[in-house]
Amino acid sequence: MLINCVAYENGSKLADISIEEISDYLQRPACFVWVALKDAGDAELAQMQVEFGLHDLAIEDARHGHQRPKVEEYGETLFAVIHTVEKTPLGELHVGELNIFIGPNFVLSVRNNSPQSLLQVRERAEREPHLLRHGPAFVFYALMDACVDRYFPIIDGLETQLEAVEDQIFEPGTSQANIRRLYELKRDIGIVRHAVTPLIDAVHKLFSGRVPTVCENNREYFRDVFDHLLRMNGSLDNLRDTIGTAIQVNLAMVAIEESVVNKRLAAWAGIFAVISAFAGIWGMNFKVMPELEWRFGYPLALATITLVCAILYRQFRKSGWL
Amino acid sequence: MLINCVAYENGSKLADISIEEISDYLQRPACFVWVALKDAGDAELAQMQVEFGLHDLAIEDARHGHQRPKVEEYGETLFAVIHTVEKTPLGELHVGELNIFIGPNFVLSVRNNSPQSLLQVRERAEREPHLLRHGPAFVFYALMDACVDRYFPIIDGLETQLEAVEDQIFEPGTSQANIRRLYELKRDIGIVRHAVTPLIDAVHKLFSGRVPTVCENNREYFRDVFDHLLRMNGSLDNLRDTIGTAIQVNLAMVAIEESVVNKRLAAWAGIFAVISAFAGIWGMNFKVMPELEWRFGYPLALATITLVCAILYRQFRKSGWL
Amino acid sequence: MLINCVAYENGSKLADISIEEISDYLQRPACFVWVALKDAGDAELAQMQVEFGLHDLAIEDARHGHQRPKVEEYGETLFAVIHTVEKTPLGELHVGELNIFIGPNFVLSVRNNSPQSLLQVRERAEREPHLLRHGPAFVFYALMDACVDRYFPIIDGLETQLEAVEDQIFEPGTSQANIRRLYELKRDIGIVRHAVTPLIDAVHKLFSGRVPTVCENNREYFRDVFDHLLRMNGSLDNLRDTIGTAIQVNLAMVAIEESVVNKRLAAWAGIFAVISAFAGIWGMNFKVMPELEWRFGYPLALATITLVCAILYRQFRKSGWL
Amino acid sequence: MLINCVAYENGSKLADISIEEISDYLQRPACFVWVALKDAGDAELAQMQVEFGLHDLAIEDARHGHQRPKVEEYGETLFAVIHTVEKTPLGELHVGELNIFIGPNFVLSVRNNSPQSLLQVRERAEREPHLLRHGPAFVFYALMDACVDRYFPIIDGLETQLEAVEDQIFEPGTSQANIRRLYELKRDIGIVRHAVTPLIDAVHKLFSGRVPTVCENNREYFRDVFDHLLRMNGSLDNLRDTIGTAIQVNLAMVAIEESVVNKRLAAWAGIFAVISAFAGIWGMNFKVMPELEWRFGYPLALATITLVCAILYRQFRKSGWL
Amino acid sequence: MLINCVAYENGSKLADISIEEISDYLQRPACFVWVALKDAGDAELAQMQVEFGLHDLAIEDARHGHQRPKVEEYGETLFAVIHTVEKTPLGELHVGELNIFIGPNFVLSVRNNSPQSLLQVRERAEREPHLLRHGPAFVFYALMDACVDRYFPIIDGLETQLEAVEDQIFEPGTSQANIRRLYELKRDIGIVRHAVTPLIDAVHKLFSGRVPTVCENNREYFRDVFDHLLRMNGSLDNLRDTIGTAIQVNLAMVAIEESVVNKRLAAWAGIFAVISAFAGIWGMNFKVMPELEWRFGYPLALATITLVCAILYRQFRKSGWL
Repeated sequence: MLINCVAYENGSKLADISIEEISDYLQRPACFVWVALKDAGDAELAQMQVEFGLHDLAIEDARHGHQRPKVEEYGETLFAVIHTVEKTPLGELHVGELNIFIGPNFVLSVRNNSPQSLLQVRERAEREPHLLRHGPAFVFYALMDACVDRYFPIIDGLETQLEAVEDQIFEPGTSQANIRRLYELKRDIGIVRHAVTPLIDAVHKLFSGRVPTVCENNREYFRDVFDHLLRMNGSLDNLRDTIGTAIQVNLAMVAIEESVVNKRLAAWAGIFAVISAFAGIWGMNFKVMPELEWRFGYPLALATITLVCAILYRQFRKSGWL
Repeated sequence: MLINCVAYENGSKLADISIEEISDYLQRPACFVWVALKDAGDAELAQMQVEFGLHDLAIEDARHGHQRPKVEEYGETLFAVIHTVEKTPLGELHVGELNIFIGPNFVLSVRNNSPQSLLQVRERAEREPHLLRHGPAFVFYALMDACVDRYFPIIDGLETQLEAVEDQIFEPGTSQANIRRLYELKRDIGIVRHAVTPLIDAVHKLFSGRVPTVCENNREYFRDVFDHLLRMNGSLDNLRDTIGTAIQVNLAMVAIEESVVNKRLAAWAGIFAVISAFAGIWGMNFKVMPELEWRFGYPLALATITLVCAILYRQFRKSGWL
Repeated sequence: MLINCVAYENGSKLADISIEEISDYLQRPACFVWVALKDAGDAELAQMQVEFGLHDLAIEDARHGHQRPKVEEYGETLFAVIHTVEKTPLGELHVGELNIFIGPNFVLSVRNNSPQSLLQVRERAEREPHLLRHGPAFVFYALMDACVDRYFPIIDGLETQLEAVEDQIFEPGTSQANIRRLYELKRDIGIVRHAVTPLIDAVHKLFSGRVPTVCENNREYFRDVFDHLLRMNGSLDNLRDTIGTAIQVNLAMVAIEESVVNKRLAAWAGIFAVISAFAGIWGMNFKVMPELEWRFGYPLALATITLVCAILYRQFRKSGWL
Repeated sequence: MLINCVAYENGSKLADISIEEISDYLQRPACFVWVALKDAGDAELAQMQVEFGLHDLAIEDARHGHQRPKVEEYGETLFAVIHTVEKTPLGELHVGELNIFIGPNFVLSVRNNSPQSLLQVRERAEREPHLLRHGPAFVFYALMDACVDRYFPIIDGLETQLEAVEDQIFEPGTSQANIRRLYELKRDIGIVRHAVTPLIDAVHKLFSGRVPTVCENNREYFRDVFDHLLRMNGSLDNLRDTIGTAIQVNLAMVAIEESVVNKRLAAWAGIFAVISAFAGIWGMNFKVMPELEWRFGYPLALATITLVCAILYRQFRKSGWL
Repeated sequence: MLINCVAYENGSKLADISIEEISDYLQRPACFVWVALKDAGDAELAQMQVEFGLHDLAIEDARHGHQRPKVEEYGETLFAVIHTVEKTPLGELHVGELNIFIGPNFVLSVRNNSPQSLLQVRERAEREPHLLRHGPAFVFYALMDACVDRYFPIIDGLETQLEAVEDQIFEPGTSQANIRRLYELKRDIGIVRHAVTPLIDAVHKLFSGRVPTVCENNREYFRDVFDHLLRMNGSLDNLRDTIGTAIQVNLAMVAIEESVVNKRLAAWAGIFAVISAFAGIWGMNFKVMPELEWRFGYPLALATITLVCAILYRQFRKSGWL
């Protein structure tokens, strides 16, 4: 689905143009065309391929989707895949794809399976003609920057969730819920990592070493994105590491809780065993058991039993079993 | 076993030829020969070695099999080993080998111990003469791409299996079955990794840095395979990591379940210990135990015991032990 | 908030100058200006950007904060972000940021969210004119060195805390407290790592390979900082590794303690079971139980029970269960 | 101990020569000398050092033994250390050393502490004069290849042992034996790794980058050894990884088995507690307990107890505790 | 504290000289001065700095100590820090530092906090004038080699200690002692790693790539040290890995032992529960319990109980619980 198709000259919008006019505008020297598609069908992609002379393999990637994030050179044209990540109302992470083709005088962005609109990127770019004058590479930067910036709240959300689990981890009785949430967090982290990590290498090539010609004048911008990605990567590494430790700690807490219960069980079992032993002995049927005949035998017996149990109880208390 | 032996010129099939004719066709300038063998015997390999001038060490590798995936240069000739992986009807993974020799004007593929036919690769190549015109390197790409693309459903299958285990992992009583399945999954992942990982480095050399001369005009195709391999590698890493965590989580779940059972055991043991204690005391044979003489002593005793047990039961319920 | 703004010439202080005078001093050849801001507002930063011709992206980073430590080149200007880490009175680690802009003839330091004063850096530098003569790069070094040196006591503190836990780790009954402290330590280590690790790569580029022009005559100084960072990194790696092992050991200690309790429980349960069994048997109501009629039946019974229990006790003692 | 000392010319054996004659033969242009020693003493090594002009440090390494596998250049001479690994009749791994000195016109192999004869390497080489013509480097290759090929059955053996443990790992009651065998396997893997891993880097330098002059015409052969080593390394990595998981799984199986026992214990304890409770209540000495007077009170009581126990038993069965 | 100060020419000792004479000897062409200090004070270091023209930062490092091992170039001068490690009589590891300054015509070694004398290095060097002729770099090598060689017995000792633990690890009842020793071993390994690992990179630069001029003619010697360090590093890695596994195995052994105790507990509890159940039933006070009236009721009851217990005992034996 075509979202819009605009020609720019010297950083300013020339006109909304139709797809058929693209080739005319491509021939004007200081001019470039920026086309935005959404969930493009095969026909649209085929048309674009002809219009901009795109490579078969790149078009195939854009059609099939499920690519890892990457930036590839096909002659003078760049083909980039960037994941969009957003939280669904149910709290799950949803991954879409933004495919971008960048040539010397055009940008084609194809957004697949992603509800995130990128209109504000175009609006902001149009408000800053001194930047938009940098041409297609700046548009590429702006689109990438927009996608990448949207990872931050996702990662912050994961951090907040982890902190919520951490607050519970030393609470007895929460271990099962904790471990389930940690497991789900780990899966979500995997999804975001998948978006971030491959992009790091890809973006690195856009400002360091032999840089593709279209990007040459925008190195500092791509380095800025790279820096953001590195920061996210650090946060994700940290999250992953912390979750690993948290699972371990959780397991230890289960064992400790278990051990506490076991000690308590042992203590109470001991106390009741003492009662039963005394009761058992005075319940024996020997003919000659003088204490049974005493007047205050029974209360004395109860007192003895109570005393012994009290001593035991205090002992267990002191040694921390109760 | 010879499957077929065909000469091509300018991307089109010239003729099915006999092995004896190969040397004639090799001398025609724009022509190349594509031979496919299956489970080749020593004699066939020796014949091929003479026909195409292949290196001893490469032939030996093809004969012995059990090589790791690789791409080696012997002068102008490339020798590649690619694993084929398929699922047997019993659900186990079966690994075969595809050995490919690529020269400036020939391709020889030797498929060993693998039921996967590669006929459709040839058919598709013959349907696209503009691509087949790229020569032996394109055939090499097409064969490799076919093998690698068949890894995807295998990996998807592993992911599905893992998800099935994940759905069970928090169900009590399933831990033994889970851990067994996780262990088997890990083994299967190892098999696929073995096919994928070594190929990554090998394919990287076919499009980056000093590329072997035969492959020079097909860099973008090999980069595409490389990209697929990287994606698979990411999935396998993810799978492996998740299995590791799942085993850990499973262990934690066993401990938690255990702890629940232990608490319940402790609680019931406590309740019955109380019954036994009371019964023991009123079973003692002291002469003077006034309550034994009461008319409603027995029902009162039963009521007392029931009451105490009920209180305990409620207490244990509240603290989550029962 | 402006802290101070001073012009230097040949390593000596020329004068405290106002912000308006900066541009005058920047034109004098052997002169450079060193401005220090604290928690700078947008207006101040904008003014500085104009004064020193700083890059948009760098200014934005300084404004937003929460950057990872880094050193970036923008043309002739360097932009560095360094974390300050300090211990709050509550024992928590607080992270602030020091942003430094270094040009051929100026240094601008912006300290955000950090109570650590850097005045003594300036004082020390002014006391050593032969060093200050090296220009802005030396000031940069001095600021970085001051921040980095303050990591040492933090790391030492973490090591001391870890040792305190280690002293307890083999004490029974401390496992829960230990694991909580280990977990908190791990988090603190993460915070310091975050300050140290990214800086290592950044500083490496200041003395090795293609060094930014402003830093060229101060390589040995930056190598010295690099060396300190490497040392810290080694300590942090060690700490992290040790904490990992300590958590594992702690878990093992819980299991061992548990096992000791279990054995004791088993032993006492055994002894009391014996008493109950004897008492139960002699409490049976069979008509003909000759020993019940004996004169010394009861004391004999008690003696028998005591004897058997004593033997059991000794046995359990010997096998280490009690 | 001298095993043999032979001069070769153009790939064919010239003569068995005495050590004194070596220097004569070294002067003949197309000729090289191949000396094999076994458990060489200091005197022999000193003699060889003089004869071939070997470096002090290399001789010292050969004398002391216990070196890690390596290939070192001393001017025109190469010095290589390769581990020999063999299985003793007791099933333990025994490590010996093969030291090889390779010069432009000589090969000196010193086999220490290793029963493996290398005679067949010489025999095979003498049967293939077209290969032996490649000179000392080919002899070097042949010796190395022989040693490395002998690692394969060792590694296969380790894999077989691991599979044997894997077959047992889900059998209850085998965990102690399993873990012991896994631990021993891990140690054996360490020994083989020690032989394989350092050799990988060393051999890599013999065919890639700046190759030592003596080896220049044999690159493909060394690449073949390299490939074998990589394959072994992959297998060893896999083994190590699997053992790690197996230990973890084994631990989980212990926990699961434990949990099963615990549940069963809890179940039986419950059933017997019920019997004791009923018996205790009807064993109380209250005067007025009407059911005690009933004619069929006793059988009814037994029936009640049996019934309750049967219900409990069925319940426990259903919930998988028994 | 000055230990000695000697001038050498052409590999032979010229004279013991006073510190004041150093500058005279430094001017003689083929001559170099070797000064050895121990626990040098600030004044001594300052004097040396003047005498040899040493860099501020290097002197500061030597003064403060607690550096990580390293080799740094300051112009023509090298500054090296090497850790000395020795075992105290109490079995703890003590770390000292050897700081070495190497110039074109001098060596200054400063030994801090280390009782290990290095006199024998000087003696050995003086006995081998053909080696000492290589100049300061050879002295540097000899000092480094002496320090590094002293790591070997330390590492051997750690290996022996680990083997001692390994011999115990499958013994029941030793787990607590084992884990404590493993933890201490791990700490000691950390100390030695700290001495070895950073030195590896540092020494690598002394024989490979751009080598500092003073070291150029001694590459093979530094490669030899490097090789020793790599070997040690391999051993340490192995030790660390084995300790990790040993802790895991130890934990598993605790769990297994626990499981054995638990089963035994369950078995005995079962047997006694049977006795109590029977005794309880025959202890009930039902009027009509015919067996109680039998003549041989009591012995029959005892026999029944014994029989049932015997059957249970055999059953438990067979299933391995007892």
